Amino acid sequence: MNIPELSSKILNGDRRALARAITLVESARPDHRAQAGELIETLKDSGRQAIRIGLSGTPGVGKSTFIESFGMMLTSLDLRVAVLAVDPSSSRSGGSILGDKTRMDRLSREPNAYIRPSPSQSHLGGVARRTREAVSLCEAAGFDVILIETVGVGQSETVVAEISDLFVLLLAPAGGDELQGVKRGIMEMADIILVNKADGDLKPAATRTCSDYAGALRLLRKRPQDPEDFPKAMMVSALEEQGLKTVWDEMTTLTDWRHETGHFGGRRAQQARYWFEEEVRHSLLALLQTPEAKDILLTASDKVTKGLKTPTVAAQDVLRELQG
Amino acid sequence: MNIPELSSKILNGDRRALARAITLVESARPDHRAQAGELIETLKDSGRQAIRIGLSGTPGVGKSTFIESFGMMLTSLDLRVAVLAVDPSSSRSGGSILGDKTRMDRLSREPNAYIRPSPSQSHLGGVARRTREAVSLCEAAGFDVILIETVGVGQSETVVAEISDLFVLLLAPAGGDELQGVKRGIMEMADIILVNKADGDLKPAATRTCSDYAGALRLLRKRPQDPEDFPKAMMVSALEEQGLKTVWDEMTTLTDWRHETGHFGGRRAQQARYWFEEEVRHSLLALLQTPEAKDILLTASDKVTKGLKTPTVAAQDVLRELQG
Repeated sequence: MNIPELSSKILNGDRRALARAITLVESARPDHRAQAGELIETLKDSGRQAIRIGLSGTPGVGKSTFIESFGMMLTSLDLRVAVLAVDPSSSRSGGSILGDKTRMDRLSREPNAYIRPSPSQSHLGGVARRTREAVSLCEAAGFDVILIETVGVGQSETVVAEISDLFVLLLAPAGGDELQGVKRGIMEMADIILVNKADGDLKPAATRTCSDYAGALRLLRKRPQDPEDFPKAMMVSALEEQGLKTVWDEMTTLTDWRHETGHFGGRRAQQARYWFEEEVRHSLLALLQTPEAKDILLTASDKVTKGLKTPTVAAQDVLRELQG
Repeated sequence: MNIPELSSKILNGDRRALARAITLVESARPDHRAQAGELIETLKDSGRQAIRIGLSGTPGVGKSTFIESFGMMLTSLDLRVAVLAVDPSSSRSGGSILGDKTRMDRLSREPNAYIRPSPSQSHLGGVARRTREAVSLCEAAGFDVILIETVGVGQSETVVAEISDLFVLLLAPAGGDELQGVKRGIMEMADIILVNKADGDLKPAATRTCSDYAGALRLLRKRPQDPEDFPKAMMVSALEEQGLKTVWDEMTTLTDWRHETGHFGGRRAQQARYWFEEEVRHSLLALLQTPEAKDILLTASDKVTKGLKTPTVAAQDVLRELQG
């Protein structure tokens, strides 16, 4: 693949080149990995910067409807929108979030929007690393807003937060007056909590839920990266397209403040370090995947299961052999 | 440390030698790790085999009371009992489960029982690897039953199940007729579900909860390692010491069957392979902890956070440098 050519096409906003490049970064083949590295290195000085928004919400909160309505509102402001997904479960379920573009019928036909399904890898770390690279490709391609969706299986919110400039938790109105089963640690990560379905019969419940969460957020310790009144809880109706512009205004208020105070760049720098360390760990473990290493491992593993060696000593022996 | 001497003292059931040996396996120092490996390798042919029982239960289900009563019942049968803990949270909370021996006042004064608190390491994998080695030391020291307790934070049940011959889930009677919030995947791991507090006012609730779980267990797919009627749900009262002997009888029925059918040894062999692979992964990543590696990492990480290199390319460079 001609990387300089692919790179300049991406900078020109060529969607087919972007799609091919994302396929390249998703590949596990060593030659593809090297090319992907080269491509991303080439594009890193494009000077373009999108707002990367991580979005988490369990099935049923209206995530697709929200992304469609929110995305359409953004394109109506002449903003270019990319939608990516991190779904560690896609390989298991056979399906994948965003796989079915009919879920976002209008947005998928919008020329200023680009929707990309989750890569079908079994390992969350792998999916997230590749999605991070896809995000930087979309950024170089000139998208203004990049939405990164996750269903929140396992640690997927954490890795999405490590890719995003701001993290949004989407919720549905709660039945009772209790807080919904938001996973511990997730609320602490949220910059904005959105209670969706603030329409029709559900509006009173949405109002109550929103106020409950606003109260809960006030109980959390203040973070240095937040201006006054953040993180905040807000209501929207994706269905009736209510409150979406206000949400966007709050998002830009927040990111503007973080730009001014240096927290925006600080977070990106911290994330770059995080992904660098992840890459090192991953590449090191990939040394166990060579045919020679697999041979050594298999022989040692056989001795261990037969009880001829303890796991600890067998592992020490294998490491010596791999390094020798 | 004189490993042959320590080894023979452990085989003689010397408790102070056992305590010193467990401290040795818990150490992260490379020379200690090598000695620990030698010790465990020396002891692996002791021919002694305990029943290793993993026990999980959230705070409030009466885990300490159960271990105390169950342990006392076992010692009354002339069995020697060791109690270990896997608590990944101990480093955070500052405390540790089993740290306060007064929780098990009678058992801790019993000559045929040995109680060891959770090692205070921050990383669950580290705690579990060391606990697995502590288990094999207790086994060589002649204990008949080894209880491995966990509170079930994060993945701790999974790693405890990978150390245990059988896995017990301890529950309290539920208020309503709903199943308690047992984490997904945990019920599938259980060999025996025990509903504790089947006493006083809670007895009707315990009966209902036990029957609910028995029903739920019947809905799970049959596993090859289970005889007829297993996994099963049972009631106990740790407080009134009711049902404990029956639980032990069921446990021996289950392990006898697994011994006869080869599943007992098969599980241990599979576990040995699992821990071997964990050790290899861990030892490989430990290569990043040498002073030279840390230097290389720090320099590269600095370039990444300054935006001079992308994480992917910087990681590739580091790997080349580490191997060169």
